[in-house]
Amino acid sequence: MSFVTVGSIGIDTIATPFKKVENVLGGSASYVSFASSYFITPELVAVVGNDFSEHYITEFKHHGVDVGNLEIAEGKTFRWGGEYSQNFDIRTTLFTELNVFESFLPKLSKSAQEAQFLLLGNIHPALQIHVIEQMQSKPFIAADTMNLWIDIALGDLKVLISRINLLIINDEEALMLTGERDPAKAAKQIRAMGPSIVVIKKGQNGALLFNNNTVFWAPAMLLPDVQDPTGAGDSFAGGMLGYLAKVNNINDSSLRKAVIYGSVMASFCVEKFSVEGLLNRSIDEIEARYTSFKNLVQF
Amino acid sequence: MSFVTVGSIGIDTIATPFKKVENVLGGSASYVSFASSYFITPELVAVVGNDFSEHYITEFKHHGVDVGNLEIAEGKTFRWGGEYSQNFDIRTTLFTELNVFESFLPKLSKSAQEAQFLLLGNIHPALQIHVIEQMQSKPFIAADTMNLWIDIALGDLKVLISRINLLIINDEEALMLTGERDPAKAAKQIRAMGPSIVVIKKGQNGALLFNNNTVFWAPAMLLPDVQDPTGAGDSFAGGMLGYLAKVNNINDSSLRKAVIYGSVMASFCVEKFSVEGLLNRSIDEIEARYTSFKNLVQF
Repeated sequence: MSFVTVGSIGIDTIATPFKKVENVLGGSASYVSFASSYFITPELVAVVGNDFSEHYITEFKHHGVDVGNLEIAEGKTFRWGGEYSQNFDIRTTLFTELNVFESFLPKLSKSAQEAQFLLLGNIHPALQIHVIEQMQSKPFIAADTMNLWIDIALGDLKVLISRINLLIINDEEALMLTGERDPAKAAKQIRAMGPSIVVIKKGQNGALLFNNNTVFWAPAMLLPDVQDPTGAGDSFAGGMLGYLAKVNNINDSSLRKAVIYGSVMASFCVEKFSVEGLLNRSIDEIEARYTSFKNLVQF
Repeated sequence: MSFVTVGSIGIDTIATPFKKVENVLGGSASYVSFASSYFITPELVAVVGNDFSEHYITEFKHHGVDVGNLEIAEGKTFRWGGEYSQNFDIRTTLFTELNVFESFLPKLSKSAQEAQFLLLGNIHPALQIHVIEQMQSKPFIAADTMNLWIDIALGDLKVLISRINLLIINDEEALMLTGERDPAKAAKQIRAMGPSIVVIKKGQNGALLFNNNTVFWAPAMLLPDVQDPTGAGDSFAGGMLGYLAKVNNINDSSLRKAVIYGSVMASFCVEKFSVEGLLNRSIDEIEARYTSFKNLVQF
């Protein structure tokens, strides 16, 4: 099924306790596009500056990403720098240069407006709403968000949440949004705000899927060698929605499998810097890791 | 198979944000006995004072617990008082009166010395070692411990750990013991100290079983109404070891199932105060909750 995603594309500088990389591809839409590309042809809606390397566009195309809605604007591409603490438990933003992203107003082509699946990557909720308003189809809509928008754009975020089918959020954000530390109570509140499906991510403790009256508990892979957690959440969302769009059927079974495929893509993502872990994977590798997730919880 | 457990029996006073109960049955051996009684006839090795209510002994017997090794000493029974914070994330000990427990030296009957399964509940590691030394059989030995012993009796604890098959520990204790925050790395260190099997409990985030080169990720039930977390760890250990003793076969499959039966008993435990949640359960209730755990992770 047709699948559209909107989000940021950036040039990142990332420092971990072990290594620093400069000027690498980042942004929510980059991770979502590569992660979902193993399941579906994603239509990418985003903006870059005219400094954006043709090499990356070739890489997107190489992964079957439809870049017809990728706007190349006058100016510099969005830039972000971040640093991780020991154990990767705290991330500090070192700098943010919005550049062309500052005036980005996503504009969907006719084809994109007819998509059946829409994944709103983590950008300002007003922009996410602006995308929903362009849709001519009645797509299945999933959105990701972050603590920043809960802090500074709560009104817009609540409007957004009222218009989507699936919210993907982490446990800290769910607490901020609802005041509930208990994930089941937080999910209940969020579902009352709109989306019938809620995923609460718990980092190294896995993720919880709330759908109707059922709960699914997804494990996280125990990875011996995490390199860079940047983009893990976007890769999760991309893998999850990519799989759902591929099977084109939303039910408890497909949602559970989708959460695991999301977890698979997130686990690949964090094993390398930037989007490297998502590039040139084989279907066999993806299926093998899916099986590892199954073995992890089998009893 | 014959199953012996040693631990404390106490009279507890427990305050939660919602309710306070006074003079209720507690202690690691009480929880272990009731939790394991659904799988096996546990032989209980413990001490109480002559103030200990006959009612409790009747309750043990009613659950098929063998109280032949329960010593009734001159003096008062061990007493403990504790208080939980909002969300149950911090427990403060309000008082500890060792009473007859102060001079407790576990003494095993001939029959107990021949047991095939030994669960050393959370007491001083020197006492746990003293029990191992009385064994005439070569039992499968599991031990529970706590932060206090890592703090004040690390030497004894290390000797104990070198002599057991299975250590059950929570994530904070594993970090204290090994300096490793990563559960896989902590488990690797602990396995190098002796036990081939390690369970790291993560509270509301479930538990991890490390056995040879395999990892099993057990979920935790999302309980809407936790009343009293006291004894959850002991109930887990009792359910786990009770099941293993019942099937009398240690392999990856039985260990995984045992972790879930432990989780089932812990989930019953926390739904009521003291040992109440472990009393008079039916096999159907236990199996139904086991199935709930299966449904939680099925994909």
